[in-house]
Amino acid sequence: MNGRILDLKRPARPLTEGFDGRVLRAHGGGGSATRDLLEAIVFPRLSNLRLDERGDSAVWSPELKPGERLAFTTDAFVVTPLEFPGGDLGRLAVCGTVNDLAVSGARPQAISLALILEEGLPFDTLRRLVDSARSAAEEAGVEIVTGDTKVIESRGDAGCFAVTSGIGVIPSGRNLSLRKIRPGDAIIVTASIANHGTAIMAARDGIGFSGDISSDAMPLNGLVEGFLRAVPDTRFLRDATRGGVSGVVCEVAESTEHNVRLRESALPIRPGTRAALELLWLDPLDVANEGVLIAIVPGTAANFALEALRSDPAGREAAIIGSILDGSNHGDLSRNDMSRGHAELETSTGGRRILVPPYGDKLPRIC
Amino acid sequence: MNGRILDLKRPARPLTEGFDGRVLRAHGGGGSATRDLLEAIVFPRLSNLRLDERGDSAVWSPELKPGERLAFTTDAFVVTPLEFPGGDLGRLAVCGTVNDLAVSGARPQAISLALILEEGLPFDTLRRLVDSARSAAEEAGVEIVTGDTKVIESRGDAGCFAVTSGIGVIPSGRNLSLRKIRPGDAIIVTASIANHGTAIMAARDGIGFSGDISSDAMPLNGLVEGFLRAVPDTRFLRDATRGGVSGVVCEVAESTEHNVRLRESALPIRPGTRAALELLWLDPLDVANEGVLIAIVPGTAANFALEALRSDPAGREAAIIGSILDGSNHGDLSRNDMSRGHAELETSTGGRRILVPPYGDKLPRIC
Repeated sequence: MNGRILDLKRPARPLTEGFDGRVLRAHGGGGSATRDLLEAIVFPRLSNLRLDERGDSAVWSPELKPGERLAFTTDAFVVTPLEFPGGDLGRLAVCGTVNDLAVSGARPQAISLALILEEGLPFDTLRRLVDSARSAAEEAGVEIVTGDTKVIESRGDAGCFAVTSGIGVIPSGRNLSLRKIRPGDAIIVTASIANHGTAIMAARDGIGFSGDISSDAMPLNGLVEGFLRAVPDTRFLRDATRGGVSGVVCEVAESTEHNVRLRESALPIRPGTRAALELLWLDPLDVANEGVLIAIVPGTAANFALEALRSDPAGREAAIIGSILDGSNHGDLSRNDMSRGHAELETSTGGRRILVPPYGDKLPRIC
Repeated sequence: MNGRILDLKRPARPLTEGFDGRVLRAHGGGGSATRDLLEAIVFPRLSNLRLDERGDSAVWSPELKPGERLAFTTDAFVVTPLEFPGGDLGRLAVCGTVNDLAVSGARPQAISLALILEEGLPFDTLRRLVDSARSAAEEAGVEIVTGDTKVIESRGDAGCFAVTSGIGVIPSGRNLSLRKIRPGDAIIVTASIANHGTAIMAARDGIGFSGDISSDAMPLNGLVEGFLRAVPDTRFLRDATRGGVSGVVCEVAESTEHNVRLRESALPIRPGTRAALELLWLDPLDVANEGVLIAIVPGTAANFALEALRSDPAGREAAIIGSILDGSNHGDLSRNDMSRGHAELETSTGGRRILVPPYGDKLPRIC
């Protein structure tokens, strides 16, 4: 953490608001200008006991019980525009890291927030982004305990990048892993898909879709805790962010060497999102989500798991979308020399197509 | 952590080297292009047990003993140019976070590395930066266990930003704090100052200074461990990065409400650096360091502390540069209505000047 303030006890000073109320390069220099910016905008919005110590590091006693493990993750966010229906960079940055911890089975303990500001970013935008990060952290029940702020030259669009890291604690005996997946397991999606990416594309291009397409960015640690209590033999969880649902199921197939089959008719997609994606010529399976998990559970637990998810507002659109096939199904695809696991989609019209992870060029800076 | 690969067991695939061997926006999309980039360039260079698991989070048992605490820190790095005499962005990013942990009294346990690449960054540059991050981590005895990679549009200079976070463990009974500082304490600097910032300015402007001005970026956790064993009653440590030595001593003065006096003649500055700074019209006390700590120890321990530092190669230029004044010295400055602690410099010519933290505009993107 850099950009500490000089006086633990000093009240916030008013930020010199000259220069049109925008970030200057000097605000990233680590001197008094940085301090003024942090004191006026960042620190009061994030205030908590560990952050307010303003040390080089945030320090605390995690009080780990025997068998508990630490989880540590980081995510960079370069989404454009900075603010979009359903969220903004601040919310996204906190939710992304909280959710990476959650799908590891970890309960979030602390979040860090590094901001790289472009010169010219309006103070008001920064205020909204930091407020939003704080409120997402509150929703998740976690604190932003340390951070850093740098400034780079303007790229013309007065943007901002955010990198969050997170520490969580995995309770004893909880062990989610690709290695636990078995043929016969059910694949569940916890919410309707493709809303985040579609909202960003619409906001970016100024496309005015009818309906209520908005990002699903939300912390899912609460949903995961309830779910894992209800279905402790859950095999594996993953958030379907960049790369979408395709990315996750292809990873599952390749890693486990089992084939995976999804049913197109089972995919929960809101009508407005579906219509927009048709216009944008995008496959909903490829589009990023920020509030959607893929859960893989034993087939026998599938209906119970679905019920558990639907009892939480964040999981009310949950659906069983497919399954892990057993070894005998490998033959289906062997004519293509696909000797290892692959993912396929049973289409609504009864056909089948092989799923491949998106290449990555269609949805730049989506998160 | 995003950008996981799909197959835990698959050997690295050759990176498609088209497009002039440079990063494309697709490499940040989270699809197969991202995977190819990470598999070919990033993962093999950073390989270690926790990273190689490629989970959403790195997971381990920290095995904390009673009384041990966790330290958590983050730092963003936007230095330009990416490579400079004595280091590069990769080295800087690892050293900065290792040192923030070290000055908190923590032994580094794990580092994360998030990269934001500009489209057009040559693969070869990325290889060197990642190699450099790895080797700095090895010097520090810590592993880069998780990461993320995003791509943004080119700004014309094909740059790269890095954000590292770190987790460390503070041994029981170790408690460094501004609050422990007392009048009569000695202020020690662990190495010659202003080398990092001067090297960056020289590299940026293509100024060819004679001599060997190079960045001092180095992990200092080893130096700190040895030092704290030798001088367990050390009050406070801080790395004098952005804001330089001025930033640290002004912070000490304002926070503790004690006055601080430095002796200009005692400041260790290499002749080449001094000459360059005179040309650049910069005060060495304001210039960033990446391998320099300020240590505050009881006055009675000062000579012993100096000896302990000088026994380590990273501390061989250490010097006692000043002291914390007792309350009666407040009067010196009261004519300026300086009722709280301030820092002053006793100049080589016998004068005195008040030190103020730099504003921040003279040395943009220095780290």
